[in-house]
Amino acid sequence: MKLSDLGEFNLIDRFSVAFKKDLPANTLGIGDDCAVIISTSETALLVTVDALAEDVHFLRSAISPADLGHKSLAVNLSDIAAMGGTPENVFLSLCLPSDLDVEWLDQFFIGFGRLAKLHKVNLLGGDTTRSAGKIFISVTALGSAVPAKIKYRSQAKLNDLICVTDFLGDSAAGLRILLNKQALAKDVSYFVNRHHLPEPQLNEGQFLGNEACVHAMMDISDGVHSDIQRILQASKCGAKLFLEQFPLSPQLKTTASQLGWDPYEIATFGGEDYGLLFTVDPSQYSDLAVRYFNKFNRPIYQIGEITNQPDQLDYFMNENKITLEFEGFAHFGGKD
Amino acid sequence: MKLSDLGEFNLIDRFSVAFKKDLPANTLGIGDDCAVIISTSETALLVTVDALAEDVHFLRSAISPADLGHKSLAVNLSDIAAMGGTPENVFLSLCLPSDLDVEWLDQFFIGFGRLAKLHKVNLLGGDTTRSAGKIFISVTALGSAVPAKIKYRSQAKLNDLICVTDFLGDSAAGLRILLNKQALAKDVSYFVNRHHLPEPQLNEGQFLGNEACVHAMMDISDGVHSDIQRILQASKCGAKLFLEQFPLSPQLKTTASQLGWDPYEIATFGGEDYGLLFTVDPSQYSDLAVRYFNKFNRPIYQIGEITNQPDQLDYFMNENKITLEFEGFAHFGGKD
Repeated sequence: MKLSDLGEFNLIDRFSVAFKKDLPANTLGIGDDCAVIISTSETALLVTVDALAEDVHFLRSAISPADLGHKSLAVNLSDIAAMGGTPENVFLSLCLPSDLDVEWLDQFFIGFGRLAKLHKVNLLGGDTTRSAGKIFISVTALGSAVPAKIKYRSQAKLNDLICVTDFLGDSAAGLRILLNKQALAKDVSYFVNRHHLPEPQLNEGQFLGNEACVHAMMDISDGVHSDIQRILQASKCGAKLFLEQFPLSPQLKTTASQLGWDPYEIATFGGEDYGLLFTVDPSQYSDLAVRYFNKFNRPIYQIGEITNQPDQLDYFMNENKITLEFEGFAHFGGKD
Repeated sequence: MKLSDLGEFNLIDRFSVAFKKDLPANTLGIGDDCAVIISTSETALLVTVDALAEDVHFLRSAISPADLGHKSLAVNLSDIAAMGGTPENVFLSLCLPSDLDVEWLDQFFIGFGRLAKLHKVNLLGGDTTRSAGKIFISVTALGSAVPAKIKYRSQAKLNDLICVTDFLGDSAAGLRILLNKQALAKDVSYFVNRHHLPEPQLNEGQFLGNEACVHAMMDISDGVHSDIQRILQASKCGAKLFLEQFPLSPQLKTTASQLGWDPYEIATFGGEDYGLLFTVDPSQYSDLAVRYFNKFNRPIYQIGEITNQPDQLDYFMNENKITLEFEGFAHFGGKD
């Protein structure tokens, strides 16, 4: 059997079972945005690793090295944000062809360094090695959080409202434009930037981490359809998602209309949005939404609710239950 | 300019300068076997990242997946050993072609898991992604140490004796045999195992970490010739190395004689030995050597001494100064 027959999540399940056993009580391993190692009641270490492979996650011809430097750090910081944590130190493992221009790498570090500085993150080490083929980038990010405030995927509760902190689908639209080289009258750079320059929502994650009414949280890396299922599995519950409530950017609405795209398909299955997906006590939602808006001058968007049917995910459009036909973003499938 | 024109160490120097600035006082970044983040006077976090790239660090046809799993963890644990630390948690970033057999990965995890269990190390996460080309493996290892007992590369002192904890060159001989497919009457599996199954010297590193008379320490990953220069640069001193004192295994002596190899060249420039290289107060050496032997039933080997001439590295054979003609192991050169 080949890895492509197994799929990414089955693959991780296949080997993670053996490594989940016998962990110390203070340690959470595979299965959330970060591993968590609790040192004291005041402090926990968060650790996450994310990799970007050439021709799988990026095309060298399509992304500038500075943007790639930014993105390779951003996707890791986003995992720290998803736990409500603060990033502190990062490590960079680079595998690079010998014939790459040094200037390419200089630009990569400019993009990487700019984002690191913005979030006061130190690059403390890593490895740099020659590749006999393509570029491969793996980043390890370490952060801290107060243990009682960490948000896990497993904390969703019955009747919680499901919310997101940002528009959905813009990044996937950017990828679609890059792959199809589709000529658009406008907004190309908006979408491509949304795909290449995701902003890790660290302040938003820390704000939500401080709220006891926020239960489960994660970042949106594989698309809402795929990611919400991680919460449902971890929390042993189900969900209803209301497509008409999915937040679409004005740019996505316009462009989808022009090009005949289904914007809800893109918003549901498109990966790499890197907003936050969380569940909240319904009695506290309005109050939270107001305080969030006052702080960030942007809304949170309610897109669904948690049900008591384990692993059952139903979609509705204007109160009509609908069936979706597409599959989410999977690193071992043919779609990524 | 291409990366290959720059070389690995110049490359790291090129970008690390910007990231070494403004680090907190409790943090050591790029430049030693591990980054060190001191939490309290009792505890420091050690972090190291090491990557293995197909056709650069291993040939898929030559190494079993179980051995590759072992080696990819071992080289990281060796960096923890080199600081005198104790490994605790590891993270694994894997980039794999879709057409790889699942059984290959099962075997990889058997080798990885066996070594993890032996050293009570937990695999807490990572990333698994598709490769559009070759296999790439990056491991991040986290460990702990008592800050006052950590051994740095920068602590060598004038007149220190330079020592190693294991035979030199066996791993490089194994690589030479694999690359040349050289038929040997015997000892093939000895050398290949020395290359594929390095044993991280964690107990030895912790023992030496507890000894105040041990000053600088690192592991031998790029070959003694290259690695000792890291200590000389960090400690701003020079060294004399005495080739006739280099510890050669009986197998290497025999095979080199049979095949016309220069065993001292292999021992000096061969990478991936993963023994420990350290400097020790000369007045304490004999006492340390006896206690080390009593504990591990193996000797330490004195191979040189520290001088006061910065970056000056001289080789001697039976008291005659000699000039070596070869270059060390470099990941961006043509030799790796």
